[in-house]
Amino acid sequence: MTRADANAEAHRRLCASAPVLVDVRPAGEVVPGFTPDLILTSGAPLPFAEYTGGQRDAIIGAAQFEGLASSREDAIASLEAGTIRVDGAHGYGCVGSLAGVYTASMPVFVVENPPFGNTAFCNFYEGKERRRLNYGCYDEGVHARLQHVNDVLGPVLAEAVRKAGGIELQPIIRRAVQMGDELHSRSAAATMIFTEALAVPLLDIAETNPAGVRALYEAFQGNDYHFLRLSMAACKAACDAAHGIAGSSVVTAMTFSCQGFAIRVSGLGDTWFRGPHAAATAKLFEGHSEDEITWMGGESIITETAGLGGFAQAAALPLQRYQGGTAQGMIDRNLELYDICVGEHTEYLIPLFDYRGTPTGIDVERVVATGVLPAMDVGIPGRDGGQIGAGFIRAPIECFSAAAAALGAQVDP
Amino acid sequence: MTRADANAEAHRRLCASAPVLVDVRPAGEVVPGFTPDLILTSGAPLPFAEYTGGQRDAIIGAAQFEGLASSREDAIASLEAGTIRVDGAHGYGCVGSLAGVYTASMPVFVVENPPFGNTAFCNFYEGKERRRLNYGCYDEGVHARLQHVNDVLGPVLAEAVRKAGGIELQPIIRRAVQMGDELHSRSAAATMIFTEALAVPLLDIAETNPAGVRALYEAFQGNDYHFLRLSMAACKAACDAAHGIAGSSVVTAMTFSCQGFAIRVSGLGDTWFRGPHAAATAKLFEGHSEDEITWMGGESIITETAGLGGFAQAAALPLQRYQGGTAQGMIDRNLELYDICVGEHTEYLIPLFDYRGTPTGIDVERVVATGVLPAMDVGIPGRDGGQIGAGFIRAPIECFSAAAAALGAQVDP
Repeated sequence: MTRADANAEAHRRLCASAPVLVDVRPAGEVVPGFTPDLILTSGAPLPFAEYTGGQRDAIIGAAQFEGLASSREDAIASLEAGTIRVDGAHGYGCVGSLAGVYTASMPVFVVENPPFGNTAFCNFYEGKERRRLNYGCYDEGVHARLQHVNDVLGPVLAEAVRKAGGIELQPIIRRAVQMGDELHSRSAAATMIFTEALAVPLLDIAETNPAGVRALYEAFQGNDYHFLRLSMAACKAACDAAHGIAGSSVVTAMTFSCQGFAIRVSGLGDTWFRGPHAAATAKLFEGHSEDEITWMGGESIITETAGLGGFAQAAALPLQRYQGGTAQGMIDRNLELYDICVGEHTEYLIPLFDYRGTPTGIDVERVVATGVLPAMDVGIPGRDGGQIGAGFIRAPIECFSAAAAALGAQVDP
Repeated sequence: MTRADANAEAHRRLCASAPVLVDVRPAGEVVPGFTPDLILTSGAPLPFAEYTGGQRDAIIGAAQFEGLASSREDAIASLEAGTIRVDGAHGYGCVGSLAGVYTASMPVFVVENPPFGNTAFCNFYEGKERRRLNYGCYDEGVHARLQHVNDVLGPVLAEAVRKAGGIELQPIIRRAVQMGDELHSRSAAATMIFTEALAVPLLDIAETNPAGVRALYEAFQGNDYHFLRLSMAACKAACDAAHGIAGSSVVTAMTFSCQGFAIRVSGLGDTWFRGPHAAATAKLFEGHSEDEITWMGGESIITETAGLGGFAQAAALPLQRYQGGTAQGMIDRNLELYDICVGEHTEYLIPLFDYRGTPTGIDVERVVATGVLPAMDVGIPGRDGGQIGAGFIRAPIECFSAAAAALGAQVDP
């Protein structure tokens, strides 16, 4: 295949993926290769010793939450000894939000992609509180909220999803893009559409478990971030389907850890092309300052990799309020991204652009040629833990230059 | 008060209105002045003999539905004799969609406006079927669907609203404007937000009336027009609050019947300033043609009178698909309407315009001076009954010229 043909196939797979939420199960039961001693985290994999700051704290907190260690010190010792293992989420069909830690007991959304036969997973949003494990915080409140997800929200959602016979995610995302969501920093409509799809199954469940159903409504109503975990799993399913096409220069994963950014490319196997940190433009919550901004990982940028998030900003102008900037700034940024993509999404359409599809399928060669860097909508963590703002980041050119060089070094197909 | 002061007060009242849905009750029980022999319909009032086409059919069908007549002929005889009475909805705090017929048994949303002490009402959406009483159709199917509203949907919603302690409508509308709704031809987000607000009360009701709750979900889910009746009542409450300010040239009602368009002005009492029909630009459903377009009344343009609908199009670009046109056309039309309004809405903000409020408070003098005519989003009925498309209409200048002349003839305040 020529580069163009390979990229067209990658683009086709990104658009033709049809992710379906089929179940909710503990990661240890359903994620292939997951073992009780394993903790997944965001970013190209690193030895435990190289995780620093909030991401290190999140890994340690995850070990404590899972009961793999009796104390913080015990957790650190076991992690250093390798009796508690750490690995990158992407290698397991998973994607992590911020620090993105997964343990075996955490329920995950199980998202199948029937056209291509692959499955992706994502664990749950912890809730609105700024102190969350995925922002590097671990204390009794964080523990209790995670336990509530494990004990109440996960099982109730699992039952509802099974009663509904599964939930197709692409129609929800398609509709949400018409309702002001870009499915990364804004999932307000999608969360509501998803909750509404479960309303009738939840009526049944309420007959035997009224408290559980009420708890689910309490968690989901007005808590617009819940669907992000589903859009992440849906996009991971699409990106994995587009991975492994010989000759393709399309990006199939972007990720970062506390140590830097990395990308994976469809035609370049499982190699991570690593670079420095992204550059951030942020609007911080009252009382916080730029010097507090820290990097503790993030893989929700799988949404941008699949044509959403920063690549669909012109469909989500209300994001202005949350991450700063102007409508025109968002529009211009969105338009520019067409220059680095191999096509337009066939399902995710921007009303403001007269239903032009979102730019989809980032081409490393076009990024290098144009110097236009992928823009991604993200939450901003602070060095003392917790979320301190929101904004957008630009991927570092180094990852793309390295991948382009590797492509150039391949024998012509 | 000077004209400017009077208009500022009208604008203030439009924005400061805080409509709350407090109950759902049969019109005959709750609308002041409603009697069992009364049928309300859209438009400046006319003698029964002057109602023609679909609007006449809707009035006759309403009499039959209500059991006021045993047959169509019987209904016509009683309407001609005046033993069944017809009057305009606006005079009763009501607003009608299309033909807009109300009978005593029909449930209405009861919307109070605490800051100003007035109450407005609207009856229910009949559902998606193109054959509806408010589109001039009456048959067994139409009757059955209306009866379902009376017997099932109305009572269940009433109970849910009471359990919820009432539902504030302005926050729902404000949020929906951020999610692609203009609250006239598009209420997709608002319907969902409203339904979600009732989810927990409905869990309680399902314990004793599971079939009723399921029927309500069946009616509301994916049937995006339901909230229109609530935005109409909310806007009617705001417009009535802004009515009756001496010296104000702000329009407080726009309406039309089969015979033509009419407006009412805050400082000009209850006089209707009548004119010919509006001019329509429509996108018709497959298989229909322009010559089928007919006028059978409409008062959902109360939404435009209060700063929504056509005055908020730039917040609802997905309407393109439904009513035709381009994003830029919608944006330009929306921007132009600022020229004829006394202010911008303080609550309904357009993300694309960097959160500028929607143009609010149509000034008859500015309409006459600029020649810019109010643009309104509407459903298009066909002469054989039923909806055949959607589009936008422009109010006729004659109503505004007549009102401006009446204002000019007033002794200077």
